[in-house]
Amino acid sequence: MKLRSLILLFTLSVVFGVSAEDFTAYVNPFIGTGARNGSLSGNNFPGATMPFGMVQLCPDTHIAPDWYNASGYDYNDNIIYGFTHTRLSGTGASDLIDISLFPTATNKVSSVFSHDDEIASPGYYSVMLQEEGIRAELTATPRCGIHRYTFGAESKSVWIDLERSANKASWNRMIINSQIRRVGDNALSGYRIITGWAKLRKVYFYIEFSHSIDSLSVLANGRHLSDCLANGSDLKAFVTFNTPDSVITVKVGLSATSVASARNNLEAEAASLDFSQAKARAHDCWNKELSKIKVSGDKNDMVTFYTAFYHTMIQPNVFSDVNGDYMRADYSVGNTCGQGEQYTTFSLWDTYRAAHPLYTLIDVKRTVDFVNSMLRHYDVYGYLPIWHLWGQDNYCMIGNHAVPVVVDAILKGFEGIDAGKAYEAVKASLTIPHLNSPFDLLDIYGYIPEELQSQSVSLTLEMSFDDWCAARLAKYMGADADYEFFSKRAASYASLYDSVSGFFRSKNAAGDWIEPFDALKYGANGGYPFTEGNAWQYYWYVPHNISHLIKLTGGKKRFEEKLDMFFTLSDSSGAKNDNISGMIGQYAHGNEPSHHVVYLYNYVGRPDKTRRLVRYIMQELYNNESSGYAGNDDCGEMSAWYVLSALGMYPVNPTGGVFDLAIPYFDKAEISLSNGKKLCVQVRNAKDRPVKAKEHITVSAIKLNGKAITTFQLSYNEIMQGGLLEFIVGR
Amino acid sequence: MKLRSLILLFTLSVVFGVSAEDFTAYVNPFIGTGARNGSLSGNNFPGATMPFGMVQLCPDTHIAPDWYNASGYDYNDNIIYGFTHTRLSGTGASDLIDISLFPTATNKVSSVFSHDDEIASPGYYSVMLQEEGIRAELTATPRCGIHRYTFGAESKSVWIDLERSANKASWNRMIINSQIRRVGDNALSGYRIITGWAKLRKVYFYIEFSHSIDSLSVLANGRHLSDCLANGSDLKAFVTFNTPDSVITVKVGLSATSVASARNNLEAEAASLDFSQAKARAHDCWNKELSKIKVSGDKNDMVTFYTAFYHTMIQPNVFSDVNGDYMRADYSVGNTCGQGEQYTTFSLWDTYRAAHPLYTLIDVKRTVDFVNSMLRHYDVYGYLPIWHLWGQDNYCMIGNHAVPVVVDAILKGFEGIDAGKAYEAVKASLTIPHLNSPFDLLDIYGYIPEELQSQSVSLTLEMSFDDWCAARLAKYMGADADYEFFSKRAASYASLYDSVSGFFRSKNAAGDWIEPFDALKYGANGGYPFTEGNAWQYYWYVPHNISHLIKLTGGKKRFEEKLDMFFTLSDSSGAKNDNISGMIGQYAHGNEPSHHVVYLYNYVGRPDKTRRLVRYIMQELYNNESSGYAGNDDCGEMSAWYVLSALGMYPVNPTGGVFDLAIPYFDKAEISLSNGKKLCVQVRNAKDRPVKAKEHITVSAIKLNGKAITTFQLSYNEIMQGGLLEFIVGR
Repeated sequence: MKLRSLILLFTLSVVFGVSAEDFTAYVNPFIGTGARNGSLSGNNFPGATMPFGMVQLCPDTHIAPDWYNASGYDYNDNIIYGFTHTRLSGTGASDLIDISLFPTATNKVSSVFSHDDEIASPGYYSVMLQEEGIRAELTATPRCGIHRYTFGAESKSVWIDLERSANKASWNRMIINSQIRRVGDNALSGYRIITGWAKLRKVYFYIEFSHSIDSLSVLANGRHLSDCLANGSDLKAFVTFNTPDSVITVKVGLSATSVASARNNLEAEAASLDFSQAKARAHDCWNKELSKIKVSGDKNDMVTFYTAFYHTMIQPNVFSDVNGDYMRADYSVGNTCGQGEQYTTFSLWDTYRAAHPLYTLIDVKRTVDFVNSMLRHYDVYGYLPIWHLWGQDNYCMIGNHAVPVVVDAILKGFEGIDAGKAYEAVKASLTIPHLNSPFDLLDIYGYIPEELQSQSVSLTLEMSFDDWCAARLAKYMGADADYEFFSKRAASYASLYDSVSGFFRSKNAAGDWIEPFDALKYGANGGYPFTEGNAWQYYWYVPHNISHLIKLTGGKKRFEEKLDMFFTLSDSSGAKNDNISGMIGQYAHGNEPSHHVVYLYNYVGRPDKTRRLVRYIMQELYNNESSGYAGNDDCGEMSAWYVLSALGMYPVNPTGGVFDLAIPYFDKAEISLSNGKKLCVQVRNAKDRPVKAKEHITVSAIKLNGKAITTFQLSYNEIMQGGLLEFIVGR
Repeated sequence: MKLRSLILLFTLSVVFGVSAEDFTAYVNPFIGTGARNGSLSGNNFPGATMPFGMVQLCPDTHIAPDWYNASGYDYNDNIIYGFTHTRLSGTGASDLIDISLFPTATNKVSSVFSHDDEIASPGYYSVMLQEEGIRAELTATPRCGIHRYTFGAESKSVWIDLERSANKASWNRMIINSQIRRVGDNALSGYRIITGWAKLRKVYFYIEFSHSIDSLSVLANGRHLSDCLANGSDLKAFVTFNTPDSVITVKVGLSATSVASARNNLEAEAASLDFSQAKARAHDCWNKELSKIKVSGDKNDMVTFYTAFYHTMIQPNVFSDVNGDYMRADYSVGNTCGQGEQYTTFSLWDTYRAAHPLYTLIDVKRTVDFVNSMLRHYDVYGYLPIWHLWGQDNYCMIGNHAVPVVVDAILKGFEGIDAGKAYEAVKASLTIPHLNSPFDLLDIYGYIPEELQSQSVSLTLEMSFDDWCAARLAKYMGADADYEFFSKRAASYASLYDSVSGFFRSKNAAGDWIEPFDALKYGANGGYPFTEGNAWQYYWYVPHNISHLIKLTGGKKRFEEKLDMFFTLSDSSGAKNDNISGMIGQYAHGNEPSHHVVYLYNYVGRPDKTRRLVRYIMQELYNNESSGYAGNDDCGEMSAWYVLSALGMYPVNPTGGVFDLAIPYFDKAEISLSNGKKLCVQVRNAKDRPVKAKEHITVSAIKLNGKAITTFQLSYNEIMQGGLLEFIVGR
């Protein structure tokens, strides 16, 4: 065994080389940034950020980003309105978009640009502002944005806009107050307090220029107000530099707690770095993260893969200051007390499925921080977050899918989490009724009656899974009564199974099926029993008890037939909505409810169909262009599906402790597991010869360290032992 | 001299007795709480508060208080909607009104009450809720409200309403988020975050009941949500007690920084006190404050006096927690670091005139805290506050009248203020243009052109005074260039003097008088050259250079004639507005711009006319009823006018270091000066016989410690030496 391991290691060294490969070269940050030819955008952005950084510095090509350009950047646009420091990656709703800077030689506030003049790589973005003759380059530290403006003209100014934000017409968005002030020869500080999708955000900043400010003009509502300071809700500043140097560098530190912390963040992270050093550091950080999974294969596929992998690490975002201060969910200030970082941007309805399971493989340290961040939220808020944005819950979507993430971390044995508190948080989150979480109704009726709370079928199904997670943790904690309670509730989904129609359907409080029923009709986010989907798509949502779902369906054969119909039925009644894209029959890869379904063929003895569909999706519904995703990337979840699927594994039950196997997309892959071990994933033929993985979907055997895997599943613990996972192709 | 002092002390002891008199017995908290018979309300409230307390606990007789019932309580109403913990006293706009409690035996949310069942005294309020059969009593510590509910029925519950507030239709008022949660057998905690007149308020609370909670039901939008916890923007809770005891006591701690501080505030101030002890402590604190000025005379007059004195000490309000934490103007958390308390509620356009000068006589310690609170505001905000509400500037009214308050404190030599920083703050506040403070225009034109900034005449006049204050401080600091700058600008008023019409008038940027001009026409708060007044009322606003105003007018005789006309001209053209009340000719005692004018006769050798008018106003425009003020009390300013005038003195120039003398209203008064000395003010006839002060307005001599005062002025320093100030009446 030892000898075999040594041989393996040698083999790996040869395959991947010992020199530091630059995996950032395979990242194309423009993927997912704009719909093309009628396809969809991932709502990603090409700007500069560090892995999981607070600052995500990027041009806004919309003056007031909103639903269809949520990240602020759309590849189809050709005007830049400024470079803002915060944004979301892949969401359907927009928010953040804070502290806009725009360099100018003409005093204009926007400029045409061309993609020909754009360069983007992890941690770096560059563009020529054509109307200004200015080359703008961006890089970032975790909490600071760094701009380098190379001016072509003598006139050198920078607009700072505290008023511009995501669209004020959405979410009652309103600037409550803001400030900008000069605090030195070359420095400004201030803040803006704003309501929006996150109910209240306090964004403090400290800006340091490479050159002394020659003149500063602060405007309120377009009128010159002051040369040094202003408070108000519509502030802009015009900073002019009188220097023969053509290059002006600007460092912008952010904080959610205070100006002092924004400055401290800047000084700790960026004071000692010039632009090139910061860019190099960002590059190196990204390369370190990206090199956790080394794949080799077709260059285009590697670009798709590494860009997806990159997108899984844009968020969650560090939220605590370098000194540990952070804004708590009750808007007071807490401190992490040296126990890791506080994180935010948990788009949990999306990311509990694949992104968080991926993190458990390669980044246990951050996973622990993520869980502890959610537990700190629980401390002051009373239940775990549903969608955690800028430190607070915006309750977007349904279910309490922090629960699977927290439970998974405990059950996988990660150290540094208080299991007692975690269980308390899970229990509270699944028993205290709150927005979109009517546990009182669930406890009375055994399901959610649609007329009392819409999205009732999706809710009942998703709550059942969360309950199953809680039951597992209750058992682990020895809380037997709770185990019984949650186990029973985990079966709630069955109350809504209609054996006549063969679908999960909505009932009213009297227990009657609600008529008429149309399995093809779509719901969005309220007013219909199904959430961002139809009865076909939600049919498969019993991830914790697939065998029972198969039984309900009428056995494996019937289940396979139903899956076949799902992937072929192209009928559509009722209006589709924005969430429906990437269609294969009724399967919608553009939204999360479908994501695990392709792997269900494994459960009825047809792994070949799983492999075929996985391969089809990877080839047809991801690509290297701005429309590279079949729908919103949803904070990296669409990307995580790709990354895991490309490695040949996906967790149908994200908290089940197992990954379901299909077929890798790359000839070879090496995963640097979080425990220091390595898992090599190889595709070869029966003669031990390497093959072009992409060309094969027929698998005759799967072996882990030489031992055959017949279940089409690998446990997390098996994976974390590392070694060699072989997929032997051909018959 | 020493012998004389001893005799004086002996005399004072005899006059006032050595036993502790209860001055709270002279306070009628219902004065100013409701308009009667077409007169105006002071917008005061009768509820329980400690002197300068954060908590001001009172029934709301309006469900959503607004302009005409800003304090939440109107004596004309007969329904109580709950007891809330914060409010403003005497303002024209409403805000605060936080955390409503309502005890119920019937589950109703309001009750009829009768004034016959009401009792109010400093620090105590009591009422019978008729429909509930519940006697509700209220008292307070500085940061906690204490409720004692005596139930007549077996059913005992308390509604807690986090949604109710001042009217949401004003100031874009909106609850951003709120929380209520059970945190023990008998305790709840939570917060609400709300926008309003104060742009952003975070109000954290901790509630402790005397009895264990039997059941808790939390409602959101009227629907039962939870039995233990809820977050949302429309939360109410229904707390039920199952106890044979008829009395339930509730303690509510508040904080602007965190739940932990709200609890800590409660524990530090109220944990060891039962209701009666807290009530006694509040009484004793008030009596200690009220006994700083001992007057004797007619009982009704004493009630008017002590209630007015009481109203001067409802605010400013302590804003820091017992541990020194407070919310800074930039919404981060600061700490006072043991340097006194942080205060808020500075209605400075009103209170710089008489309230702050009064505090400098009897409460230098708090005056220093007030000034340091404003300087802390300056630290993060860049200029001093205009109207400081819940720790932030709402910019209400015009001028920067923190400046006179700060300058006065420095020039009066109070220790504990950083004069260097104070001067920096004053200079910044008068040079950095901000809302309603267009110094850029003033510097360009030498006055404010109306078409560039309305309220231009009032602004120019009031800014001139602030500049004069700054000039004085600049001189004191040895900043000669600044002294020249501010001295020059302090004369700006003269640019708007039109010798043809004989009024201050508005000019446009070209320097032309703006036509038509109507000296009788009123402005409100924008759109007209005069602020809450007319040209007649603003004519007198050169408090720092009365002699020049006399010269402009054409000499003393003409000045006297103009004053005579002012006090007799009853004509009115143009609509009056709400701010105009308490009329004597064009004089409007109901609003502050007029307040010093009665004292101007002193300056032209007619102190008799000053005395006659002062006496008339005290007798006719103040009374002992709910309509006891001629207009809004404006955070105690109307009251401070009365208190000082009753003592025979008023500061025409609040920063001039002198008080202008008229005639005391009481036979004897003893002021316990802040330096420990006492000033006895006596009215007597030439034969050294005591007289009924009220019956005399003819003064033949004024003597301080036996020395004749011929200037009708006493300097602050002379007053602070204490001793005997005699007004010898009769010819």
